[in-house]
Amino acid sequence: MQQNSNSTCDNEKNGGCGHEGNPGIEKLTGNEFSNIRNVIAVMSGKGGVGKSSITSILACEYRKKGHSVGVLDADITGPSLPKMFGLKSGVRSNGSALFPSISNSGIRVMSLNLLTANEDDPVIWRGPVISGTVKQFWTDVAWGDLDCLFVDLPPGTGDVPLTVMQSLPLNGLIVVSSPQDLAVMIVSKAIKMAQMMNIPILGLVENMSGAVCPHCGEHFELFGPSRGEEIAQKFQIPYIGGLPVDPNFSKLCDQGKIEEYESNLFANFIPENMTQ
Amino acid sequence: MQQNSNSTCDNEKNGGCGHEGNPGIEKLTGNEFSNIRNVIAVMSGKGGVGKSSITSILACEYRKKGHSVGVLDADITGPSLPKMFGLKSGVRSNGSALFPSISNSGIRVMSLNLLTANEDDPVIWRGPVISGTVKQFWTDVAWGDLDCLFVDLPPGTGDVPLTVMQSLPLNGLIVVSSPQDLAVMIVSKAIKMAQMMNIPILGLVENMSGAVCPHCGEHFELFGPSRGEEIAQKFQIPYIGGLPVDPNFSKLCDQGKIEEYESNLFANFIPENMTQ
Repeated sequence: MQQNSNSTCDNEKNGGCGHEGNPGIEKLTGNEFSNIRNVIAVMSGKGGVGKSSITSILACEYRKKGHSVGVLDADITGPSLPKMFGLKSGVRSNGSALFPSISNSGIRVMSLNLLTANEDDPVIWRGPVISGTVKQFWTDVAWGDLDCLFVDLPPGTGDVPLTVMQSLPLNGLIVVSSPQDLAVMIVSKAIKMAQMMNIPILGLVENMSGAVCPHCGEHFELFGPSRGEEIAQKFQIPYIGGLPVDPNFSKLCDQGKIEEYESNLFANFIPENMTQ
Repeated sequence: MQQNSNSTCDNEKNGGCGHEGNPGIEKLTGNEFSNIRNVIAVMSGKGGVGKSSITSILACEYRKKGHSVGVLDADITGPSLPKMFGLKSGVRSNGSALFPSISNSGIRVMSLNLLTANEDDPVIWRGPVISGTVKQFWTDVAWGDLDCLFVDLPPGTGDVPLTVMQSLPLNGLIVVSSPQDLAVMIVSKAIKMAQMMNIPILGLVENMSGAVCPHCGEHFELFGPSRGEEIAQKFQIPYIGGLPVDPNFSKLCDQGKIEEYESNLFANFIPENMTQ
């Protein structure tokens, strides 16, 4: 899908694809209601750097270019995507598969928060159950025909990132960082994990690259100087760009109107002629 | 330890205490090298709202008042405490217990990042192994004589928060939130989980309560208006206070000098006459 990804994934059946990053571990097959051509996961290692924000922006930008897009919320115990897209619970089923909720612009979303009675009900589950749910979001959801499915991973390098890297036919990962040294250290863990699992890293995005003061209009470094290009260079991965903190963005997230946010962060990342 | 906590924990032996939040599940006993009088966990549900920052500030404020303090980093796959305290790997052992690293001001810290060869080596473990490590940080670490041990939990409501709530003799939890609606929703999950597990919530802190522009000095709402008092009221828990984003704080964290940060966020929370 991108010049730096040497894996393509055109299998028209079952959302499966030919490349196997982890020999010996079976990739999951999809179902008869899904035909997913590309799968990209968004990862960070560190919490709160904005994985869900970046996943949503990426999905919206793809969608605006006319592609069919889905988002799988793999953050089972801290799901935030439905709220950003203004989606409430009420997932339908045909008896053999669950149907994702559909956003205003037509993005298909599946998240645990669409399945709980109240959006703030906690899911107190241990790792194997959580991983099993993520797998079911692949095997038991009727995604339909998708150019691209984005997978929003939870923080850390534990069960869910491991399951997604082992079991889903990923084209690759997008890594999200923030300018703090601390975030850099933990993002490095995520990059090393992906490399150990032979999952290509498609690019790095730096979120919270400073802020713009609404009073004087000056840009300042909120969490320290930008480090995105430096990390990208260190690990020899493409640098996609940086996104400053924008109170308007937070507001749109809280209102469930993330699709109204104007962004072209991924202008050079999204291929003009993606496999349709 | 606080007027709102109806559980006290004065057992002088083994770090154990009398109250059992979850009947039927055995609390872990400590070891002969530890005598821990109070245990407080810091939780959020959502990642990146600043649990580790708040845990560190709390530990430093306790320490400055002359108490003996330890910090158990239960964020196994995304540990950030050693970096904040300027501690590197090199934990010693006496053959039957591990000794925590000791910060400049004398805070004892145990974290997985003190046990890995490089601070950015990823720990690609599944839940049961991660939970087992957290338990070992209780049973196999020679904490010595501590007035208070603070436990920095990872994001989410999965394995580790569950293990800590079930297995450690917690006095209670401090919950960390941020002003976003999204964070409020996920923090509510954490609060509900604690309530379901009968763990007292000692108070709520709102992190990232706006920012101060270094150019014009104006305070502005970075992630939306403050919501801390509202959540505290909704769940009937004490509101400890809010902490604005401060580039100086991030800088001290990155330099490993968090102990130099001046704060009195917990001035009203830390009891004057704590059990010594």
